[in-house]
Amino acid sequence: MFFASDNTGPIPPRIMEALIQANTGHVMPYGDDPIMEKVRVKIREIFEAPEAAVYLVATGTAANALVLATLAKPWETIFGHEISHIAEDECGAPEFYSNGAKITLVPGEAARMDPDALRAAIRQSGSKGVHSVQRGPVSITQATEAGTIYALSEIGALTEIAREFGLKTHLDGARFANALVALDCTPAEMTWKAGIDAVVFGGTKNGLLGVEAVIFFDPDHAWEFELLRKRGGHLFSKHRYLSAQMDAYLTDGFWLDLARKANANMRRLSDGQRGIPGISFEHEPQANLLFVNMPRAAHERATNAGAQYYLFPSSGVPPEEADDDPITCRLTCSWSLQADQIDRFLHLVRG
Amino acid sequence: MFFASDNTGPIPPRIMEALIQANTGHVMPYGDDPIMEKVRVKIREIFEAPEAAVYLVATGTAANALVLATLAKPWETIFGHEISHIAEDECGAPEFYSNGAKITLVPGEAARMDPDALRAAIRQSGSKGVHSVQRGPVSITQATEAGTIYALSEIGALTEIAREFGLKTHLDGARFANALVALDCTPAEMTWKAGIDAVVFGGTKNGLLGVEAVIFFDPDHAWEFELLRKRGGHLFSKHRYLSAQMDAYLTDGFWLDLARKANANMRRLSDGQRGIPGISFEHEPQANLLFVNMPRAAHERATNAGAQYYLFPSSGVPPEEADDDPITCRLTCSWSLQADQIDRFLHLVRG
Amino acid sequence: MFFASDNTGPIPPRIMEALIQANTGHVMPYGDDPIMEKVRVKIREIFEAPEAAVYLVATGTAANALVLATLAKPWETIFGHEISHIAEDECGAPEFYSNGAKITLVPGEAARMDPDALRAAIRQSGSKGVHSVQRGPVSITQATEAGTIYALSEIGALTEIAREFGLKTHLDGARFANALVALDCTPAEMTWKAGIDAVVFGGTKNGLLGVEAVIFFDPDHAWEFELLRKRGGHLFSKHRYLSAQMDAYLTDGFWLDLARKANANMRRLSDGQRGIPGISFEHEPQANLLFVNMPRAAHERATNAGAQYYLFPSSGVPPEEADDDPITCRLTCSWSLQADQIDRFLHLVRG
Amino acid sequence: MFFASDNTGPIPPRIMEALIQANTGHVMPYGDDPIMEKVRVKIREIFEAPEAAVYLVATGTAANALVLATLAKPWETIFGHEISHIAEDECGAPEFYSNGAKITLVPGEAARMDPDALRAAIRQSGSKGVHSVQRGPVSITQATEAGTIYALSEIGALTEIAREFGLKTHLDGARFANALVALDCTPAEMTWKAGIDAVVFGGTKNGLLGVEAVIFFDPDHAWEFELLRKRGGHLFSKHRYLSAQMDAYLTDGFWLDLARKANANMRRLSDGQRGIPGISFEHEPQANLLFVNMPRAAHERATNAGAQYYLFPSSGVPPEEADDDPITCRLTCSWSLQADQIDRFLHLVRG
Repeated sequence: MFFASDNTGPIPPRIMEALIQANTGHVMPYGDDPIMEKVRVKIREIFEAPEAAVYLVATGTAANALVLATLAKPWETIFGHEISHIAEDECGAPEFYSNGAKITLVPGEAARMDPDALRAAIRQSGSKGVHSVQRGPVSITQATEAGTIYALSEIGALTEIAREFGLKTHLDGARFANALVALDCTPAEMTWKAGIDAVVFGGTKNGLLGVEAVIFFDPDHAWEFELLRKRGGHLFSKHRYLSAQMDAYLTDGFWLDLARKANANMRRLSDGQRGIPGISFEHEPQANLLFVNMPRAAHERATNAGAQYYLFPSSGVPPEEADDDPITCRLTCSWSLQADQIDRFLHLVRG
Repeated sequence: MFFASDNTGPIPPRIMEALIQANTGHVMPYGDDPIMEKVRVKIREIFEAPEAAVYLVATGTAANALVLATLAKPWETIFGHEISHIAEDECGAPEFYSNGAKITLVPGEAARMDPDALRAAIRQSGSKGVHSVQRGPVSITQATEAGTIYALSEIGALTEIAREFGLKTHLDGARFANALVALDCTPAEMTWKAGIDAVVFGGTKNGLLGVEAVIFFDPDHAWEFELLRKRGGHLFSKHRYLSAQMDAYLTDGFWLDLARKANANMRRLSDGQRGIPGISFEHEPQANLLFVNMPRAAHERATNAGAQYYLFPSSGVPPEEADDDPITCRLTCSWSLQADQIDRFLHLVRG
Repeated sequence: MFFASDNTGPIPPRIMEALIQANTGHVMPYGDDPIMEKVRVKIREIFEAPEAAVYLVATGTAANALVLATLAKPWETIFGHEISHIAEDECGAPEFYSNGAKITLVPGEAARMDPDALRAAIRQSGSKGVHSVQRGPVSITQATEAGTIYALSEIGALTEIAREFGLKTHLDGARFANALVALDCTPAEMTWKAGIDAVVFGGTKNGLLGVEAVIFFDPDHAWEFELLRKRGGHLFSKHRYLSAQMDAYLTDGFWLDLARKANANMRRLSDGQRGIPGISFEHEPQANLLFVNMPRAAHERATNAGAQYYLFPSSGVPPEEADDDPITCRLTCSWSLQADQIDRFLHLVRG
Repeated sequence: MFFASDNTGPIPPRIMEALIQANTGHVMPYGDDPIMEKVRVKIREIFEAPEAAVYLVATGTAANALVLATLAKPWETIFGHEISHIAEDECGAPEFYSNGAKITLVPGEAARMDPDALRAAIRQSGSKGVHSVQRGPVSITQATEAGTIYALSEIGALTEIAREFGLKTHLDGARFANALVALDCTPAEMTWKAGIDAVVFGGTKNGLLGVEAVIFFDPDHAWEFELLRKRGGHLFSKHRYLSAQMDAYLTDGFWLDLARKANANMRRLSDGQRGIPGISFEHEPQANLLFVNMPRAAHERATNAGAQYYLFPSSGVPPEEADDDPITCRLTCSWSLQADQIDRFLHLVRG
């Protein structure tokens, strides 16, 4: 009953097989391997972006921070949601890589930036000339940290505001695939057709050992990114083992299959909790994340039986110390969860 | 009618005279001048802090950023009010000097951090282990950017919370003197006796050409600060001209006289507006800053006649474009303002 | 005939097998996996250092830069050899991670720092008080970038000088194993018994997909390193796949077997070239790197037949443009090279 | 007998008078004062550069670091002489402001970069693609730290090499005036006509309290510089007092008069030492700095009688500890030295 994270589970056999296949002969290091050439071709096809610059790095924090540092100047501020990963979960990596850019926190319901709040925040930021930091890129997380999803029109509304002010846009797609299959749209529609300039196309949370693709639709950013990647220690010598994972992930829509499985697991998990007395959802789950308020007794039955997931504090008070009832739990579903684990959890929660 | 800023006016003759007096003979550079030795002695006396490390720099932004970078690690977050100078008016200097520390914005009425909001922000910040930035110093502005003042007990309440979490505290005292004379307390009471670890003791806004003293009550921070000051280009070779200003400022309580004049000017300015129809104050002015809501007609009479002050936007809309009525104006009084200028402004506003 | 680098070859089956074994069930992410616990135990045993703090990262550049940033302050200078990897091959990663520390280049024959030159460089660096950067850690590369090795007494002589000035020491052990088997000593003897404070224990150049262990003999550095690692984007969520590689590498002395194979390959390669007219070695190869001066004709025969290796410029002139004869070639041997490839190369060079 | 530095002496009365004149009325802060407008006009005229962007800062270290950070990217290396001020005397300010750019040390006789050595250093730096730092700006110091001067053709030779590689050029002109009057050329000839892109036009070492002008001949750099200046805490609120100094300095060629006086003092000081047994010059002094080897006995006579100057270590050994004879002394002449002081020193040295 592992609902703690989408990165605690194993790797699909197909990915492991790709590593084994790649492990033969001598090939050029540092991204000059032939498998990377295939990856570039595939990503450009899938995103309908023949000019795009495409790179691989091993962690989502690195991918986000390197892209933001490429798009932002040190004296700028990045606009992101109050609970975005870049603001809350990366120990200041964007600030570090950008040499001290700020992140301006934009509110919005269910982890989605509110367009009016974004416009107000942008206006506010640039109002004092040289005395205030300058306006920098807008960062959008899809799927969000709350397990919700921006509709294509909602992404478009935010990028439209960015464009109004001449700002670049970044999509944190750590759960890109989960959002895409939920929206049932094309990668192009969810990115550049919606006004996105640079994408972190996540693989790690959706089955890879540790690979994220970075995609710049405008290849002018490429060389600066390459220098930052090397300087940050994120250029792999034995790059073929990153390439091989991503290549297998992209082959025959495997990445979409994995995301569909994870999302289906979440539907089973969430549908099974509807109507249980005392249970309520913070938001309707749209991808593979659920924030659910559970009676403390139900929570204790589940964890005592070995269920793993994170609790969320209110106002900074550790949930163990708080005596709120119900208690807010974050449940995550990965592709690797089995139906019987989910059902066992539901059984425990029902009591 | 110069209400735009407390740094548009001239320098008191006594300060200019001190520069002339200092301008004789050859003396050692870089802070080893004999006048600086006198300044050290005086500041330690005035603050009742015989061990304090004392330095001079030329701008308030430098002073704040250097102190915060001395107190904060790059992976920490500084806690400051939402409209603090360090957050809004220094083009990211604290982020730059600290190599990418964050500033966590703490709300609170009238530019004073709310103690409960501070505690909640601190708790929230340290809740994710290595994934979130760590808790760093608490920065308090006295007098505040809104022209209000923390009572001694209010400073103590905030530093008490900081101490609870083992955090250091910084006082941004760009308008230190204005606050001190308003509170009618001692410098020690407003700083280390209230739990403050490091002070920026402003001179520039209160009559000097450009000098701020930095005071660390714990001299362990001294050497790191000295290296940062040099590395930041803020160590003056002809340091005696900074020392001479500060020395004259401290002599015979001249710094307090200047602040009393500025505050008295503000009382005349604010008292003169009370009861005028359509006029209201954002906060009761306690130092030398006033945020006043004026009918747009009154504002136009004043500025057409040459009055200078800043307007404040609501929601990022430039006040010139907004059609709000009344309009929010920031009026500042310096020691050098004459009563007749104030009275002329009041006359115009009354219409 | 792949002599270009020790990271172009495949991964030993035993390492790949370890990945497959690790790929089962749900485990905690971010270094809390049980295999990492085994790795910690093994490294502490192998290094006879029960208190050591042990971490894994995926690239050598990251490992070096993170360790140096932990040991150095921004206003310090790191002492390293003129052609060290940290100075020449990391795109400024140490400068970036340390927020602008310098690297003072120390000369010395065959890529080994000369002790007198190190002492002179240290003395010189600290001679101007606050005006000059301060003295920081000493970085030693073992095996060196020239394929040579420091004797234990030579490491001791350098760390002795460091200790004299109160400086910390870093060992860049990207080719740790190759040096160790050549010296036939213990890991403790080559590190803390010789005065080293922190080690990058390389795995990638010796057979792993991409894993380097970082070892601090003084665990006081641990927490700061952990924050820097996360902030740099180098903390892996699916950490078990790093752990599994390192665990297999350490089991039954496999890491030593791999290094012995690589070094034996180099002996075959170098011995086979001795006495060939026109061939000379820049230095006697002691590990798995050889810098050899070859007649241009021999070089062309080899490369035309598919041999891969790097050429080294003199005075910055690209070797392709220079008309020097002989030409300096860097040949690297990995564990995976076959004897027949080496022999074929030798045959070609002989002409 | 103050030969320690050109910044230990007093300020010329004419500069002090300018401060007094400027001290009247209310004027706009932060560089929008009317005197600054005059300064801009004068500098553009003096440099025959009607498009130039012109700024003032208060210290030479700030001026150099801000200009270099404007011209260099973090992943680049700056080329400067081995004993340049930016490399040796700024506690790493260029590295700090540029977020970790390197400085590549270029040798050359008498503190002048050797053109061949510069070309070799540039070639070497860019030879490893993404693995090495990239080529950045070339920094030239005029007059040099050794008291020598580049001929115009020598500056041209260096900037020609920079242009060959597409690199920008910076002139550290802390002693700009001393060099100019020695060369008897125009400011344009010594800067943009010789291929210089950005100049630090020093005032502090030549009589001002603390003002350096920064001049970008290509105004495209202006906005980035302005943001860096503010972010570095170097934008003065009461900017008029910087402007007033620079304005008086430029009026009626006063800056040239001061430099002529300082250089004449040096000629008296150096000519008076010629032929004294045991005395030799490291280099023929061309501006206001002299490095002289003196018998230890002569040095002791002089310092016992109160003469002040710096000693220079050989190989990092503090001169006080070394038993070398003669001893190397750095003597500096400012405009304010009196002939009788110089003669008294000469008398002491002669014994």
